[in-house]
Amino acid sequence: MTPQRVTMITLSVADLTVSRRFYAALGWQEAEGGNDTIAFYKLHGQFLALYLREALTTDLGLPIKEMTTGSITLATNYSAREGVDAAYQTALDAGAIAISEPEETEWGGYSAMIAGPDGHLWEYAHNPFWELDDSGIIKGEP
Amino acid sequence: MTPQRVTMITLSVADLTVSRRFYAALGWQEAEGGNDTIAFYKLHGQFLALYLREALTTDLGLPIKEMTTGSITLATNYSAREGVDAAYQTALDAGAIAISEPEETEWGGYSAMIAGPDGHLWEYAHNPFWELDDSGIIKGEP
Repeated sequence: MTPQRVTMITLSVADLTVSRRFYAALGWQEAEGGNDTIAFYKLHGQFLALYLREALTTDLGLPIKEMTTGSITLATNYSAREGVDAAYQTALDAGAIAISEPEETEWGGYSAMIAGPDGHLWEYAHNPFWELDDSGIIKGEP
Repeated sequence: MTPQRVTMITLSVADLTVSRRFYAALGWQEAEGGNDTIAFYKLHGQFLALYLREALTTDLGLPIKEMTTGSITLATNYSAREGVDAAYQTALDAGAIAISEPEETEWGGYSAMIAGPDGHLWEYAHNPFWELDDSGIIKGEP
């Protein structure tokens, strides 16, 4: 079974400076770990990430066309690679479209991506730098 | 300040039966409160909702065009209407586009919607049927 949780909500943005300014104006505090392409905000047991659209497009190997709502990906993290493998296979068995097979990432993790019905993108990831508690909630900062 | 939390993640879907089947195949348990247009899943302190695209389109007063990722809205709940009013005003002050002003909803709540940069849709809602704990996390079921 794939756990019922979302570890990260990723909003793809056209201009990271504009978006950082917007969320700062809401009073949000950016977490550590950001750079010129991504910004992290710690929520309750999860992160919201603002991610440069062109970087997301490259990651996905998919064009991001004009949309009437913003482009978003959802992620569920696992404490081991085996969890990513199992979740990916379960999703394919459930009829998901494979976007990227489980593989090592540049940032030292292990990740897969699928598209569920209506193109909703789910990443299954193992991040060795994020400690998860027993309920799968993030303990650390990115 | 607008609190750093997401109470509900709403995935707009073309066919609710297809999507229910998909998440059931992942092993997800649907919560109470669903019907022919919406399904709820309890996550850690938040809900994920599958919502019929045509119903979301009607709610928003916006067309949902072809997209390369699914259409999603994010919601933050407040324990009182005043919280909704304040969050809405803060967002507009931050440069958000008004989608719908704070108003009473058919389901007995009070809600407003804005679009942040890149069209990311945020709903600010007071749901008198959802009890929030001190950190703004949902206690009850929908």
